[in-house]
Amino acid sequence: MNLILIFPEETGPDGRVKLTDQRAVHIQNVLRAEPGKVLRIGLLNGPFGRGRVEEMVEGSVTLACEWEAAAPPCPTLDLLLAMPRPKVLKRLWAQLAALGVGRIILTNAEKVERFYFDTHVLNPDFYNARFIEGLQQARDTRLPEVSVIKQLKPFLETETFPTIEKKLIADPSGEHSLFQTLENLGEKVPSIGTGPKGRGSPNCVGAQRFAAQERRILLGIGPEGGWTPYELEMFQAHGFEVFGMGPRILRTDTACIGLISLLAESLRKSV
Amino acid sequence: MNLILIFPEETGPDGRVKLTDQRAVHIQNVLRAEPGKVLRIGLLNGPFGRGRVEEMVEGSVTLACEWEAAAPPCPTLDLLLAMPRPKVLKRLWAQLAALGVGRIILTNAEKVERFYFDTHVLNPDFYNARFIEGLQQARDTRLPEVSVIKQLKPFLETETFPTIEKKLIADPSGEHSLFQTLENLGEKVPSIGTGPKGRGSPNCVGAQRFAAQERRILLGIGPEGGWTPYELEMFQAHGFEVFGMGPRILRTDTACIGLISLLAESLRKSV
Repeated sequence: MNLILIFPEETGPDGRVKLTDQRAVHIQNVLRAEPGKVLRIGLLNGPFGRGRVEEMVEGSVTLACEWEAAAPPCPTLDLLLAMPRPKVLKRLWAQLAALGVGRIILTNAEKVERFYFDTHVLNPDFYNARFIEGLQQARDTRLPEVSVIKQLKPFLETETFPTIEKKLIADPSGEHSLFQTLENLGEKVPSIGTGPKGRGSPNCVGAQRFAAQERRILLGIGPEGGWTPYELEMFQAHGFEVFGMGPRILRTDTACIGLISLLAESLRKSV
Repeated sequence: MNLILIFPEETGPDGRVKLTDQRAVHIQNVLRAEPGKVLRIGLLNGPFGRGRVEEMVEGSVTLACEWEAAAPPCPTLDLLLAMPRPKVLKRLWAQLAALGVGRIILTNAEKVERFYFDTHVLNPDFYNARFIEGLQQARDTRLPEVSVIKQLKPFLETETFPTIEKKLIADPSGEHSLFQTLENLGEKVPSIGTGPKGRGSPNCVGAQRFAAQERRILLGIGPEGGWTPYELEMFQAHGFEVFGMGPRILRTDTACIGLISLLAESLRKSV
């Protein structure tokens, strides 16, 4: 836990917050904080801040909170992921939050087993707890949003992705690597990744929190058996660029972490 | 299992191999192969090939093997990893093989708990089984080599890394990103990643299997608490370049998968 995340509803009008759960245990037993110690805190979907320990009794810690004026930038990457096996998704939730994914769209696909959608792993209480864990690990405050799409075709036909500039799909049939594809797209749109990032925008919260941003990327990753030719055509008809990932066939979670890291570094490089 | 890996000692003088373990179960129950079917096979640390199913009885499959003339290229990336928690390392083994790491050097560090080294996860039988799993997933034949270093300082003082061209260390103190660091190094060594890759070299097996290669990279990743300033100085004195990974603090396994993917893509891009 490299950041203590506070929920907006937990803060009192006097700027104090009383923690009585795992966070209190962590502050007492791992950080071994004493009254007066200042801790690194974050407000969920809001700014970072400093929390001074005011009172500590067994199992309870009261912090006096001071918040920075502006929230950290919103994530610039969304993920469109063919629903993985529940066991894999369970492991993946915290990592997706830690890596800074904005919206996670889980979709059905030809090669996805229907019963995957029956899992408790898709319960918001379950994944939000994993997200919080990932955010506290990575020091971020932005909770990813999750959408579950049972039918891919009507979703692609109606969803306009208003805040997305580039749509990419990973598939072994892709002729170019991710970097080549980004470079090719960059020639058409030379300002790749250099636009406003919502940095310092305190309004970047809630359902419309991406509206102020430009040049966001949507990354599509298929099921373990791959997308079908029909699905790939459908993606391309809706403006997705297909890229290849080299000769290795990776597990869904490994591919997600690797490709998100690649895109994050590409965006970081160009700003 | 996207590739059936065969061990050299399993092949008979007539080019036949009889499988009686999980591979036979996979061929029968998952691939539902019939006699005559040709399967994608690989020889451990050797070439890919085609295995024609000759005989199938319950729990046993006999394949007639034909091998390609040349083995796939050797990995171009080695990993120097501060010994992670055994639970994390257990998860990581298969992924490191799947991502194509050549040598994995596990080292002690100031912020590594000594008892981490007592784990059964460091037993070669344990990790080799995980490596085989990762290679069969990713379709590769190159088994990573593992070294366990209990004392970092004497190791760095005596090890010359004869096949390594670039030594990199990930640390939050790094001023430049990985890409910037590679570009900076590339200016000094313009032929980054463009050298011979051992492609098609059938002799690239065993302890000296990297000797024929040039321009390999060693990537150092620290413990969850980071390297100490003393350790970082020591690395720099031995020719390592320190790079930063952005503001996020990632779990060791997430950081490994992300950084290896970045380096692999950078090397792939430049060849």
